[in-house]
Formats: sequence, structure tokens, C-alpha cells
Amino acid sequence: MHIAILTFDGYNELDSIVALGILHRVKRPGWRVSLACPTPTVTSMNGVVLQAQATLADANAADAVIVGSGIKTREIAQDATILGALKLDPSRQLIGAQCSGTLLLAKLGLLGQGADRLPACTDLITRPWVQEAGVEVLNQPFFARGNVATAGGCLASQYLAAWLIARLVGGDEGEREAHSALHYVAPVGEKDDYVARALGHVRPYLPATAHTVPA
Amino acid sequence: MHIAILTFDGYNELDSIVALGILHRVKRPGWRVSLACPTPTVTSMNGVVLQAQATLADANAADAVIVGSGIKTREIAQDATILGALKLDPSRQLIGAQCSGTLLLAKLGLLGQGADRLPACTDLITRPWVQEAGVEVLNQPFFARGNVATAGGCLASQYLAAWLIARLVGGDEGEREAHSALHYVAPVGEKDDYVARALGHVRPYLPATAHTVPA
Repeated sequence: MHIAILTFDGYNELDSIVALGILHRVKRPGWRVSLACPTPTVTSMNGVVLQAQATLADANAADAVIVGSGIKTREIAQDATILGALKLDPSRQLIGAQCSGTLLLAKLGLLGQGADRLPACTDLITRPWVQEAGVEVLNQPFFARGNVATAGGCLASQYLAAWLIARLVGGDEGEREAHSALHYVAPVGEKDDYVARALGHVRPYLPATAHTVPA
Repeated sequence: MHIAILTFDGYNELDSIVALGILHRVKRPGWRVSLACPTPTVTSMNGVVLQAQATLADANAADAVIVGSGIKTREIAQDATILGALKLDPSRQLIGAQCSGTLLLAKLGLLGQGADRLPACTDLITRPWVQEAGVEVLNQPFFARGNVATAGGCLASQYLAAWLIARLVGGDEGEREAHSALHYVAPVGEKDDYVARALGHVRPYLPATAHTVPA
């Protein structure tokens, strides 16, 4: 099971790394989480240079993809090379977008069209740009329909990560894994509150019967 | 104003990066936040390689230092080269430790001695090691006395960052800056709750009169 976190130059550190840390709490054979980047290294909005762990092609083949956020997303959403290299497909992948990553989802047509277009979450700064792309922006931290989810506000990345764990592992076991991962990262003395809040955001979007990602 | 985040091989991504992202929300002349490492690159507990932005010597000269956490802290706490290179001094610096970073603070003697020894926060895994070092571990996410603070649980790093901003900027302005930084990173739709909870943890440890770090 490979989860790729798309991370571009200008990336917001929290938006890529919080999800990465939580997703890595799952210790299952074949479970892999990677930072997928268009270049061997990327530099964050605050100058943090990190090494790519996967390519955009790897992300295209992943079981799940998180589209990270950053200060250059509006440029990336007009970059034909990057857009052309991304072949994401919610019929065979779980797709999540964090903050300005939602703008990229809209540009890639992954939020659907017309009356079937999904409403979405994003951060307060990206909000007008996502609206301009014709998407209804929700005043909530997390929303999902089918295999596509969006989250707004850096720390909402914990909800996106929890949804991915619950969906990818599947069923009651998936929710237990999400609970365990959230419990680990939550502040001491308020772990139960953190877990309950996060699962409260995610649970309404988990399928009642089949939690597993379609083959 | 330089805040150095000590980040070693085996580092926990959330523990270094969440604080970094929040601290970078402060946009003031001379405000600088860096990842301070013993080597030019460090590799996280989950294989994330990032480039150092400062040295341990830079951290010794910083206005504030966060001791990050990771899976190798127990080894580092016995590494004479690293311990010898660290010259942290709470009489001229704000010092914060995150999770297993608290163990390093204890080994460096920065939690005080005997009856004056500070109680501290740490994560649930490091807890017995900190207790073995003779420190009372609190069942809460954040504690500070004077210029030394500790936080337990990855996401408690937001409280440590808020305390540093409030103290370094000082006074009502410091609390406003902390509020603004927390508000930015909090999930959409629950920003006020997040900010209130975080400031609720930090405010009891802010000086009533002089919020500024001693010269």
C-alpha cells in the first residue's frame, strides 16, 4: 500500500509533514508513505530543503495520493509540465487534497463537473481561488465523497491522514488503526479529546459496509 | 531574534516541523527560525532527509532553542561529542523541549537539581526514561517555569511554539502574535477553539508583567 504526498517547491511544511508522520504510525507489511516531488529536492515556503522519496510517476501508480499545499500552488496549477505529468484517478486511487492542494484538484478536474461537482475544503487564503475555479468551499475542516477528500487549515491534515488510514486498512480495523495513530501524535493529557474530535470529522465519510479502497 | 530547533538523526518529523511552521508565521525584522543539526543533513525516524539550516554552535548563540525529539534521543543523551557541543543556558536563552527532547534537557542539567528540579512534560514512550533521570513527569501537554518549557505529545509542539512567540515578542503584542500564528495553522471551522485551547495551556506560564526574554 503506497501513499504518495505530492510536495512541490514552496511547500507548506505542516501540510506535507503532519500527514506523513501520522500515516507512518501504521506498521503493516507493504505500507509505504513517501514525499513525491517533481525534482530531487524541494524547498519549502520557509526554506526547508528536503529530499524527494518518490516521483510524480510513482504518485500516479500509488494507492493513495495527498496533494500538498504551498505558496506556489497557483503557479503549479498553470504549469503544463506538472499538470501533464499527473495522472491521478479516483476510480483506482484515494485522492486527498490539503489546503491549496484543493485548487490543483479542481484544475485537474478531480472534483467533478457540473451538478456532480464536489464541494471542498481549503484554507482561508486559497478560498477565493478555489471559488473562482467554480467550486463551493465549505466552512469546515474536512469533507469527502467517494474516493476524494479535501481538508482546510494546516492541522486539518490529521483528519485527512485519519481518513486515508481508515479507508486503506478498511472496516473496523481501519478505524482502530486511525485511532491508534491519532492517539500517538495527540498532546499528552488530551489524547482522548483529540482522537474523538478527529474521528468525529472523518467517520461520517467512511462507507458503512465496505471501507476498503476499490482494487 | 533567532530560534534554533535542534534536530538530530532519527528525528520525529512533527516534533521539529510543526513548531517550525508556526514560528515562521511571525513576520518581524530579524526574526529567524532554523533547523540546527550536528551534520549537514539529518534523516528522520521515517526516512525524511532534510538539510540543516544551522549548527549546534549557532543554537548555543540563539535567543531560543527547541530540543526536538526522535527515536535516537537515548543514544544522543549519552553521546559525549553532542552533549559537549551543546552550551545551552536558560539565563540568556529560552529553552523548550519536545517529547524525548526532555530527556536531553535532564541530562544537560537544564531542569535544575534537587528540590528546585522542574517537573516536565514528555511523550508516553520517553516517560519512564525521564523518570529514571529523576524528573517528575506531568500528565499534561505543556509546562514552563522561568525560561524553560517542556511539551509532551507531537501536536503539543503548537503550545511550545506559542509560548516561544509570546515570550520572545513579549507583552500583549506577543500574545497577539501567538494568537495569529495559531489561528493560521488551525483547521477551518474550529480555529477559535484551537487558539483558545492552545493559549489556555500557555497563558498560565507567561509572566504577568515582563513577557520579554532577559537580555
